[in-house]
Amino acid sequence: MAKQEDVFKKVISHAKEYGFIFPSSEIYDGLSAVYDYGQNGAELKNNIKQYWWKAMVQLNENIVGIDSAILMHPTTWKASGHVDAFNDPLIDNKDSKKRFRADTLIEDYCAKIEDKEKKEIEKAAKRFGDAFDKDQFVATNPKVLEYRARREAILSRMAKSLENEDLADVKALIEELEIADPDTGSKNWTDVRQFNLMFGTKLGASADSAMDLYLRPETAQGIFVNFLNVQKTSRHKLPFGIAQIGKAFRNEIVARQFIFRMREFEQMEMQFFVAPGTELEFYEKWKQTRLKWHLALGLGDENYRFHDHEKLAHYANAAADIEFNFPFGFKELEGIHSRTDFDLKAHEKFSGRKLQFFDPERNENYVPYVVETSVGLDRLFLALFSHCLKDEVLEDGSERTVLSLPPALAPVKAAILPLMKKDGLGEYAEKIFNDLKYDFNLIYEEKDSIGKRYRRQDAIGTPYCITIDHDSLNDHTVTLRDRDTMVQERVPVSELRRIIDEKTNFRNILSKI
Amino acid sequence: MAKQEDVFKKVISHAKEYGFIFPSSEIYDGLSAVYDYGQNGAELKNNIKQYWWKAMVQLNENIVGIDSAILMHPTTWKASGHVDAFNDPLIDNKDSKKRFRADTLIEDYCAKIEDKEKKEIEKAAKRFGDAFDKDQFVATNPKVLEYRARREAILSRMAKSLENEDLADVKALIEELEIADPDTGSKNWTDVRQFNLMFGTKLGASADSAMDLYLRPETAQGIFVNFLNVQKTSRHKLPFGIAQIGKAFRNEIVARQFIFRMREFEQMEMQFFVAPGTELEFYEKWKQTRLKWHLALGLGDENYRFHDHEKLAHYANAAADIEFNFPFGFKELEGIHSRTDFDLKAHEKFSGRKLQFFDPERNENYVPYVVETSVGLDRLFLALFSHCLKDEVLEDGSERTVLSLPPALAPVKAAILPLMKKDGLGEYAEKIFNDLKYDFNLIYEEKDSIGKRYRRQDAIGTPYCITIDHDSLNDHTVTLRDRDTMVQERVPVSELRRIIDEKTNFRNILSKI
Repeated sequence: MAKQEDVFKKVISHAKEYGFIFPSSEIYDGLSAVYDYGQNGAELKNNIKQYWWKAMVQLNENIVGIDSAILMHPTTWKASGHVDAFNDPLIDNKDSKKRFRADTLIEDYCAKIEDKEKKEIEKAAKRFGDAFDKDQFVATNPKVLEYRARREAILSRMAKSLENEDLADVKALIEELEIADPDTGSKNWTDVRQFNLMFGTKLGASADSAMDLYLRPETAQGIFVNFLNVQKTSRHKLPFGIAQIGKAFRNEIVARQFIFRMREFEQMEMQFFVAPGTELEFYEKWKQTRLKWHLALGLGDENYRFHDHEKLAHYANAAADIEFNFPFGFKELEGIHSRTDFDLKAHEKFSGRKLQFFDPERNENYVPYVVETSVGLDRLFLALFSHCLKDEVLEDGSERTVLSLPPALAPVKAAILPLMKKDGLGEYAEKIFNDLKYDFNLIYEEKDSIGKRYRRQDAIGTPYCITIDHDSLNDHTVTLRDRDTMVQERVPVSELRRIIDEKTNFRNILSKI
Repeated sequence: MAKQEDVFKKVISHAKEYGFIFPSSEIYDGLSAVYDYGQNGAELKNNIKQYWWKAMVQLNENIVGIDSAILMHPTTWKASGHVDAFNDPLIDNKDSKKRFRADTLIEDYCAKIEDKEKKEIEKAAKRFGDAFDKDQFVATNPKVLEYRARREAILSRMAKSLENEDLADVKALIEELEIADPDTGSKNWTDVRQFNLMFGTKLGASADSAMDLYLRPETAQGIFVNFLNVQKTSRHKLPFGIAQIGKAFRNEIVARQFIFRMREFEQMEMQFFVAPGTELEFYEKWKQTRLKWHLALGLGDENYRFHDHEKLAHYANAAADIEFNFPFGFKELEGIHSRTDFDLKAHEKFSGRKLQFFDPERNENYVPYVVETSVGLDRLFLALFSHCLKDEVLEDGSERTVLSLPPALAPVKAAILPLMKKDGLGEYAEKIFNDLKYDFNLIYEEKDSIGKRYRRQDAIGTPYCITIDHDSLNDHTVTLRDRDTMVQERVPVSELRRIIDEKTNFRNILSKI
């Protein structure tokens, strides 16, 4: 546990120190749960977007991409259910004046019970050593059984109360459990009430005509309202998909875990429109296809798992998450949902327009069913960054920090490093830079020892370092150093483009999907 | 004039009909001055972004790119001057309850005088025929001179009143000129007052702790507040630049001209940090470099011009626009500003942090000066789209509509068109699609006659059409048709990748900068 926390701290500090992620408006002490991507973060993020866009839009003949606005007509959110149901149950402490999510307070309480349970298991494991049978112990130890039963009873009562909108019982539960404000210890709570998570704003200047708008809480609705425009102008028959990458906003009460849960974040969503009755077949297909897309990044198959939803959202008839093994445990990275015809039907109802497709094979009009795939771009960034950040002890006993990103996603593809600036090495290095810069994002650096420069490139994940020395001027070869193997080999300058391209081309990962 | 309006109407309808731009939330009758990019628009927009990012970040060793959040700490906008001074002077008509920009009402009044002036000139030109000397006529004709003097007097009085914040005189001017509500004819006006153009929202749920935020009205401040973080972690010495592409929001009262002035729009900005005293030299350099970047697109040098600002904003000591010849005349496409140390000094003052650079050559600390280049991404989209959209009469008398975009920016690089689906032509075409799809965005289409399919590809600007016929199965050649010349030639399938790449590679335009 302590180790996981240390790993996560290291991730956050490395992200800042090497220009990947800065707290937003840091000179003004930051804005809670909002972050800026620095010079290396912006490149990595752009590369992740490209990987997704190429895989979804470019490789699939029947998927197109759009870019819809963040501001939408407010009735959109009435139709989608967000105005009425996109809420968190909140409770205020009357003494500290602090606000909390009521469900989080209860979940944190249960997490403490779980910690006790784990401690019992650890104690027993120590006592019995190799002879310890965890499954048997967990199934029979009275203390563990009691902890578990208690947790389950609390969580199931909470889930039921929330489902029935019985907020009074959620408050009663908090009081029965004697949950206190974690900072002040006060148990003086207000009632629990629902708080809508959408950011509001106003369009137009006139007091009479100002329109209450929302910053979109998801990009999906931008696809639904454009369904017919895209289908007609692209002339695609069903099944076909519309993909989109863009910002979304949620006024989270407790936003935490760095860029995992932000108030301003970015989604990569695809809505696949299919004939009614075929949706579950496509749902299964997309579950597998999306998992393969993640696995192609090479972070280790064991770090992914499906979590099938038992309780389904009001719009879905099947749903699963792809979870990733983050430094704080397995958490949702992508969601795949069979959304039925809920959204399009709702937009038909609220807009009075038909949103149907004429199927020439069935010879009938219908509202398509939808299978959605939705990745959190920032979460995927965090998955890559935290997984690839490694401290290594080298053969000679020295240490290095290396960010072993998939080469196609690395912010910088190669660093051009003249051994020194003088003797014409600087000019020769610049010539190489200018020759390769049209094809790759490069760094040029001439300060410090080569060893130090290698370390800095390792820390930002640059696949290749190219060192120019005095021999280069005569034989037109350079030293090419590989980030992962640290092997250095002498290669002709004329071969550089081909070598770098072979290593860093998107085709390397795309072809594995 | 009428013709220009027709051209613009055609641009708007073609943009919708071919999946480039849809009105936002159109099924709910749209959201004023907000637009969505459709499947071809999203690709074109992404390609424009890539062209800018490659030219600014990838080709310049001393420029890096970032991606900062739309939500920023509110003090940012106090420091930048937006809270106090980012206003439009508004006036309401008491009868119609409609709101107008006071300065626009006066400018529209002057535009009518200008129309009269133009008519006088046109009349004279007709009368004198070839003998007409426009310059002489304009300099001596009493009517023209009177119109001109009148216009200038009005505009200069307005400018002075606005500068002195004498809004009462702006209202007096409207009344003296007897300007009426254009729809109703009413002259019953309220006072003029300033209205801030930033969209507001609230962060956080608690009534006590909610923070008033703004959606950023420009991306530049996201660069300024990150200046020190980027400079330190990238280890760049001055001069160096930080680039960014991102959304910005302005609650415009009268937003018009399609995507030229939107409430939600996208900017591509670069702030170049230099030593004090060197800023005007870099300002001149960036003016020329940015113009070359635009000219490399090949839309015709005559369609660009500089407009040097005579009246400078409070933060600038030099400023110019690059104007483009839009369907509605020459208008701002990009701004280049020498912003001095205004922004960084303001952030120092409001944040209490030093935002300085230690210059080893001068051996001193100073706040850098800044030269900014700022393109409106949507405006550039409109410039490209409207300029490249052409109706052509062909040799045989038939007509076609072609969108002659620079090939590197075209949404689709090639269309794969089997003459028919059967006889194995569909399978062979799919093989070609699958072989080329890793490198290019393609379209696969098997319906309708080849002629109709060519027309559709012309209309979205696809540089190449590849037709697969029965001979292809035997000799592995296809018909390659060029969008611009309409020449069709027989080429081996194995040559397709090289040919398409040669035509559509970004290097073609990048190497002209």
